[in-house]
Amino acid sequence: MLTRAQVDDARTFARSALADAGVHIRDDEAATLEVSDFGLGELEKTGLQLLVYVNTDRVCAKELVLMPGQTCPEHMHVGEGSEPGKEETFRCRRGEVWLYVEGDPTPSPRATPYRPEHCTVWHEIVLHPGDQHTIFPGTRHWFQAGPEGAVVTEFSTRSTDERDVFTDPDIRRITVVSES
Amino acid sequence: MLTRAQVDDARTFARSALADAGVHIRDDEAATLEVSDFGLGELEKTGLQLLVYVNTDRVCAKELVLMPGQTCPEHMHVGEGSEPGKEETFRCRRGEVWLYVEGDPTPSPRATPYRPEHCTVWHEIVLHPGDQHTIFPGTRHWFQAGPEGAVVTEFSTRSTDERDVFTDPDIRRITVVSES
Repeated sequence: MLTRAQVDDARTFARSALADAGVHIRDDEAATLEVSDFGLGELEKTGLQLLVYVNTDRVCAKELVLMPGQTCPEHMHVGEGSEPGKEETFRCRRGEVWLYVEGDPTPSPRATPYRPEHCTVWHEIVLHPGDQHTIFPGTRHWFQAGPEGAVVTEFSTRSTDERDVFTDPDIRRITVVSES
Repeated sequence: MLTRAQVDDARTFARSALADAGVHIRDDEAATLEVSDFGLGELEKTGLQLLVYVNTDRVCAKELVLMPGQTCPEHMHVGEGSEPGKEETFRCRRGEVWLYVEGDPTPSPRATPYRPEHCTVWHEIVLHPGDQHTIFPGTRHWFQAGPEGAVVTEFSTRSTDERDVFTDPDIRRITVVSES
């Protein structure tokens, strides 16, 4: 559970990071930036700030903002019926992102996972501003921001967060905010 | 037909506009920026500079760069077989864009079309940085940049330029560059 103050602080951080990355957002967008701690209650370690530009039946685009060292935990996107699952391209706008995907494990990876028992893929891809990588459905991935945090644009098919399959069974994608 | 010098100048303009908009692109991307005059030979009036980030079977994302007053001529995206046609969202990053779509004609529209006989839709949507609009398949649209030019990010389904239907029968989407 997140407190209202935590959400406000995370939104302030995200707004500042987006401005530094040259991303202009409207006031109504800034006020509704999504903050997720994935239900673990350690937002600065495991969490994500998101601005969803569009999410129709066919197309989704978002800005993802990460605090320094903040991690999006390992998960994959699965299909349902005739829908093959989400495909997404991450393009780094600012900072540095360490992305881990299926493949040969990278010796001496840069990231420090906070819950290493739930990180099963270790092929490292380092994204600097202007670098991008496409993730196809059904493939596990996770990522961590470098020491300056990061801004990443995601281009994808429809986002269906509720269908994401996380490796860590304690994760809940829907964030609960304490109103106390 | 475009000359090599025209292409180089348009790429230089686009690279500068993207930098001003805070969009970081790699050198290999800058060197391959697409320049289209739609076959009309009047690039500064009717044309577009494009950086395609990704274009897979399901997802496409691009930056569109327009010179001051430059116009993307009226067209629509149609389907083929079971594919319903391209859906696209334009998000203005920099400058001002005057977008024309189907609907009630706007009195005293801002744009000055260079070939007005081929502009049939006149419902005006003004996009400033942070504003966006989604175009669904089978609907006609065209747009013109304001006096400072514009940078627009496009989030869409697969881009199939060769299937675009232009109102102006003289338009050719594939640009030919003179090597002389």
